[in-house]
Amino acid sequence: MRIAVDAMGGDFAPGAVIEGLASALSDFPTYEYALVGDLEKVGFYLEKYGIAGDPRIHLVNAGSVCEMSESATVALRAKKDSTITVCAKLLKTKEADAMVTPGHTGATVAATKVLVRALPGIDRPGLVASMPNQRSRFLLMDAGANPDSTPLNLAQFAIMGELYAQYVFHKARPTVGLMSVGGEDIKGNDLTKAAFHLLEKLPINFIGNVEADTVFGSGVDVVICDGFVGNVFLKGAEGLARTTVFWLKQMLTKNALRVVGALLAQKAFVELKAQGSSEVIGGAPLLGVNGICIIGHGGSTPLAVRNAIRIAGECVEFGLNDKIVDKINASGMVHGAFIGGKDAQ
Amino acid sequence: MRIAVDAMGGDFAPGAVIEGLASALSDFPTYEYALVGDLEKVGFYLEKYGIAGDPRIHLVNAGSVCEMSESATVALRAKKDSTITVCAKLLKTKEADAMVTPGHTGATVAATKVLVRALPGIDRPGLVASMPNQRSRFLLMDAGANPDSTPLNLAQFAIMGELYAQYVFHKARPTVGLMSVGGEDIKGNDLTKAAFHLLEKLPINFIGNVEADTVFGSGVDVVICDGFVGNVFLKGAEGLARTTVFWLKQMLTKNALRVVGALLAQKAFVELKAQGSSEVIGGAPLLGVNGICIIGHGGSTPLAVRNAIRIAGECVEFGLNDKIVDKINASGMVHGAFIGGKDAQ
Repeated sequence: MRIAVDAMGGDFAPGAVIEGLASALSDFPTYEYALVGDLEKVGFYLEKYGIAGDPRIHLVNAGSVCEMSESATVALRAKKDSTITVCAKLLKTKEADAMVTPGHTGATVAATKVLVRALPGIDRPGLVASMPNQRSRFLLMDAGANPDSTPLNLAQFAIMGELYAQYVFHKARPTVGLMSVGGEDIKGNDLTKAAFHLLEKLPINFIGNVEADTVFGSGVDVVICDGFVGNVFLKGAEGLARTTVFWLKQMLTKNALRVVGALLAQKAFVELKAQGSSEVIGGAPLLGVNGICIIGHGGSTPLAVRNAIRIAGECVEFGLNDKIVDKINASGMVHGAFIGGKDAQ
Repeated sequence: MRIAVDAMGGDFAPGAVIEGLASALSDFPTYEYALVGDLEKVGFYLEKYGIAGDPRIHLVNAGSVCEMSESATVALRAKKDSTITVCAKLLKTKEADAMVTPGHTGATVAATKVLVRALPGIDRPGLVASMPNQRSRFLLMDAGANPDSTPLNLAQFAIMGELYAQYVFHKARPTVGLMSVGGEDIKGNDLTKAAFHLLEKLPINFIGNVEADTVFGSGVDVVICDGFVGNVFLKGAEGLARTTVFWLKQMLTKNALRVVGALLAQKAFVELKAQGSSEVIGGAPLLGVNGICIIGHGGSTPLAVRNAIRIAGECVEFGLNDKIVDKINASGMVHGAFIGGKDAQ
């Protein structure tokens, strides 16, 4: 197995990426890597982390980087040799089984769409985010790849998300809920009402509509929504978590008594912050691409990079994409297969 | 001015509603009230809070209540004499200038739609939620009245939300942002991209797209979105806030040291919880209805009821609805006025 790693992606690249790669080399000794980046910069860190000359690393030069501040389409058009494009090309030619980038999500979605394309029968790939809840974690799909989705897209997300929860999160029979604005099936918008009727026919453990306030407590394993709603939900949670930390700091430093109290209970706040950390998960898979693609957080630490590589490896080992194609076919939710070639709208 | 008050709405009705009414009677002595509910139950609390026989209270009997657990349409059809329907009728016949209910949001939206109807030129009323941010608060519209919105709906929400922020939240020139999944105007879904081009033409302080993670810190005053997205965002924040309290409790009670620390800093947590409280605001106005309609939280306390009444009174005093109609007309964003009677889609 060979995994293409974008050495230049994320806020702490290439140092954090290469430090993460060093952990991966020792923890998953059988994988090979195509390390894609500015070879001059990369070399320094390969030496630093003691993995220069490791025969499992194949260095691939890439002349540019899609910056986080750039628009995805502009960056991809202007930078034909960006690390993301080079990784996607390796995935396309099967020189890599998987790619890992802590870089630009939009550029990765766009590059894989154009170069790698979707799995047979899949209309649109979707991004799977992992979020904490009162029991452990739940998955959110689509977290932002497709701002406009069809009912078929949501049905395909449900199948892909369920399989991912089974194989990577080891849930025997994951529950799948449809994000909506009320529990009954008649509640929702036009999209969710149509999707509801597709989801209830699928061979998955569909538990119906779920609401945004209950998903943090209820124990639903996979929450399905379009990419616009998913992105607003995910970013809203990130923003509120940051703001809660801001408020806590403000309120805990108002007087000496509170400061002393906060110091005594300090470790609780460290643990609270860790709840929201993306390190353990490492990255969000873009499922439905004809190849495994894991997108890490822009602020990825070495541990996050190492865990993104772990997930990429597991997805390849489990044959996740073959299982997705099989289940899409078995359930009849194949893009373009509806009467007259028109998908369920 | 007369305000219709749904005595039976919310989890603590009628006690909390009538206790709130008692405060309102003393704080806003010039208002009159139509108190709508089960007169037998209401009577006890009127005595209890010392306002029985107050000449400013006109008692109106209503035989039933829309329960929170019921579907809005089912409840309204089955209960023609529900407190919400009776309040809406008083608003329709102008026997009341405003209505306040801490009851069923969906039933209130549906009842006012059928009985009171929208203001001239308005297509769909929208719900305005007030949420805390790092500076003070921001408004979210639509928070859930319309799961499927058109670009015109969003433009009308922007005008209504801006006027509400001006008159009730005393912001001289409120900033208005469009909730989207990226800062640039080309980012978003089909709806927000079309709405963006309407919003930039409006005589409001439109600052472009805003993202769900930044609205808690940025200081945008009014955030515009469709009711599905708004409801997911609002409920997501409520759910995460509750879950954060759950995590904090869990982590602060792990050992004796933390418990002592938490006790010393106790007041900070009380203040943190108060950040999310809806008491101060009292209620979410359903703007665009041909009459003032304020919907309180189901868990409304007496203070929340009193503040919902305050907001209702202010909206009437400011002539908010006249100002909305004027600005809708002046900006050309009139429902049905586009070429061929077809609104901007």
